[in-house]
Amino acid sequence: MSDPANLPCTHPLRERIAQAVRDVRARTPLAQSFTNFVTINLVANAQLAAGGTAAMSFLPDDVIDTAAISGADYVNVGTLLPFYKDALPQIARAFAKAGHPWVLDPVAAGIGKTRTEILNAFRAVPPTIVRANASEAIALASMWRLIDPDGASRPAGVESVDEVDAAVDAARAIARHLARYAPQGRAAVAISGKVDLVTDGERVFRIPGGSALMTKITGAGCSLGGVVATYLAVADPLTAALAASALYNRAGEAAERVAHGPGSFQVAFLDALWNVTPEQVAGSEILEQAAAQSADRSSGA
Amino acid sequence: MSDPANLPCTHPLRERIAQAVRDVRARTPLAQSFTNFVTINLVANAQLAAGGTAAMSFLPDDVIDTAAISGADYVNVGTLLPFYKDALPQIARAFAKAGHPWVLDPVAAGIGKTRTEILNAFRAVPPTIVRANASEAIALASMWRLIDPDGASRPAGVESVDEVDAAVDAARAIARHLARYAPQGRAAVAISGKVDLVTDGERVFRIPGGSALMTKITGAGCSLGGVVATYLAVADPLTAALAASALYNRAGEAAERVAHGPGSFQVAFLDALWNVTPEQVAGSEILEQAAAQSADRSSGA
Amino acid sequence: MSDPANLPCTHPLRERIAQAVRDVRARTPLAQSFTNFVTINLVANAQLAAGGTAAMSFLPDDVIDTAAISGADYVNVGTLLPFYKDALPQIARAFAKAGHPWVLDPVAAGIGKTRTEILNAFRAVPPTIVRANASEAIALASMWRLIDPDGASRPAGVESVDEVDAAVDAARAIARHLARYAPQGRAAVAISGKVDLVTDGERVFRIPGGSALMTKITGAGCSLGGVVATYLAVADPLTAALAASALYNRAGEAAERVAHGPGSFQVAFLDALWNVTPEQVAGSEILEQAAAQSADRSSGA
Repeated sequence: MSDPANLPCTHPLRERIAQAVRDVRARTPLAQSFTNFVTINLVANAQLAAGGTAAMSFLPDDVIDTAAISGADYVNVGTLLPFYKDALPQIARAFAKAGHPWVLDPVAAGIGKTRTEILNAFRAVPPTIVRANASEAIALASMWRLIDPDGASRPAGVESVDEVDAAVDAARAIARHLARYAPQGRAAVAISGKVDLVTDGERVFRIPGGSALMTKITGAGCSLGGVVATYLAVADPLTAALAASALYNRAGEAAERVAHGPGSFQVAFLDALWNVTPEQVAGSEILEQAAAQSADRSSGA
Repeated sequence: MSDPANLPCTHPLRERIAQAVRDVRARTPLAQSFTNFVTINLVANAQLAAGGTAAMSFLPDDVIDTAAISGADYVNVGTLLPFYKDALPQIARAFAKAGHPWVLDPVAAGIGKTRTEILNAFRAVPPTIVRANASEAIALASMWRLIDPDGASRPAGVESVDEVDAAVDAARAIARHLARYAPQGRAAVAISGKVDLVTDGERVFRIPGGSALMTKITGAGCSLGGVVATYLAVADPLTAALAASALYNRAGEAAERVAHGPGSFQVAFLDALWNVTPEQVAGSEILEQAAAQSADRSSGA
Repeated sequence: MSDPANLPCTHPLRERIAQAVRDVRARTPLAQSFTNFVTINLVANAQLAAGGTAAMSFLPDDVIDTAAISGADYVNVGTLLPFYKDALPQIARAFAKAGHPWVLDPVAAGIGKTRTEILNAFRAVPPTIVRANASEAIALASMWRLIDPDGASRPAGVESVDEVDAAVDAARAIARHLARYAPQGRAAVAISGKVDLVTDGERVFRIPGGSALMTKITGAGCSLGGVVATYLAVADPLTAALAASALYNRAGEAAERVAHGPGSFQVAFLDALWNVTPEQVAGSEILEQAAAQSADRSSGA
């Protein structure tokens, strides 16, 4: 297999990524979140540091009212309360009816009867983008019967036990499912790992970089999901997923250079989300997997 | 119209402000909060950094028990759960019956049926102080039928779409309403913006300063509400609102001088809440609007 | 009374402490938390900075599923919601049935009817370790009828009004109660204060050190409880309680040396949890109270 190729400097996707970064800073779009209690503060602060505006809600009437003025929404099923079992499907149906774009983070997919019921309910009214780790993507694709369930690994709580490469099939299958329901037929899946993977169901991109310290603070993944929603408020799903993933890797590297541990890393990371330039984000290494390689890997996954 | 006049250095209000800052640090008063999940940590940390003590509760039996040992309470309706619809009015009635002072932050007033029901229920058992942005103050005053509802702007989520000057009428009307129910007839309203506005219903003060980075972290407004409650535990409502607003502006300026972005700004802001002196807070520019000007502005708002 | 003696350098407990610190960093054990909304983020970040892995859940099906893959759990009753009244006893019974080790932080014990009902329900299915401040330990021991209730002080919200020395009897009585239910009969109680106290019901240890700034950030105590659970995933209860308490004191001292206030203290504290060495933790001053002294103090408390 030949090495995946870095996108040329003049590739149109790079200009779309730079434009998304600029547009968020210029327009400060509102992206609303229904998210977990552990990292809700970091999600909001990351969205603000990226240039957007944040609002968090849990009651369906609140979420649906606010969605009317938000560019995109973010739903994260990390910490569930009893009323979510009815509220989250109701919200997803309202988004579907309105054609409202949203990002799902299926945290800990595969654990807990309530979470499984909620995620299963999303199958018929799915998000525009799924942001997950490899294990969660595999669990979700299996739950939605998009891949052979025997391929699904055992859940490991909120941490992935699988490498990103093991989730290529799952990611593409999810993205194709989302695209069938999406406005204009466009959707994306972003898998976070040592190397991030982004796909629209056809093309598969890998974005290396970031910092190992991102796994030593809580919420790097959750807040990435929130920032994907911020970008989705101004860009198409593939661009939003690529831009947010690349921004996070560049910010992680900048933060690692000045950090003395996870505390100072998080502070420097938020500063870097604010300071990284559109050109730095758009100039990231973005490796596109050749179509043949995609097929090879799919059959070998 | 002549410029509003800065309060003289020897004005008694300045000494009351300095005394409030000192008293909080000396007495570490407990101010309890029923607040949103996004910024609950910053509210507590800001109250501690200002010198007070924090406790957060959501169950009526818990809140009412703790209120017996707290100097003042803070209620913020940012992120609602289903049981709040009954719990929050029950708590407000208990505070009213006990004559317990409390601060309301009507986050996102105007959005969501549940929030509107809760805020409407507070009309007859109102807080001692309202801390809000301009849009929220206008929405609340309209909801409570204290101003012409045609003056109310459309809500914009948790961000204000109105300037503070547009909310002078609303702020004064709310303060007068609160004063009618308040122990000793004293109440206040604090509106946050580029220039903060504080009124007891009669006198109107403007406090310039702060930092634009305060809008790039989540919870500057929420945590100000919490610190207003901390000061209300040791001071009268007008003094508490002025002291907290001035403290926040001084701390924001100190933090901006050393910040490299929103991450380091928040860290430096908490440090500054701890380090700003009572004299710096009390020496803030505090512009009092002349009575005639108040009328002018009111009719022109 | 002679001075309590510092454990010899070669004492086996010191090697067990060093090993626990090393094991957490090598094995990154998962410790799940059911904790309050104020400090939930700091609990997770402290567990990660100590080297562990974090997951937070609230629904019984979620908690019980995740407990199957977690080394120990942490339960903190700081901010209660209505459904906790049934959920928390159900979870405690499931832990008891499975022999699953867990740490309880009885925040604000003595305040609120719901909290009292929950804490009373834990009496028959108790945790392996209780982490509390002095007032909470006294309130819990009194509630569980393990000490003379006349010895119980009035609750003071989430802050202790009692010194650690006043809680020696309560701590030992609780530890003995826990041990009767614990797997292998081993349990511990850790009381936080200016000097921390740890007991397994028989032996009593005092660990001096730390920083006064630990009381000026919210969650030093809560996150200590979480880190105790992280250590409990790899060590016996006494070792876990000693290791976490010593780690916190060393990290607090390191953070105070570079902090300019509570904001920078918290950042430096998380960095220090990451950077403190196993040898520094195990080399802490650990004062063992002689058996006779224990009896003296008990009768004199």
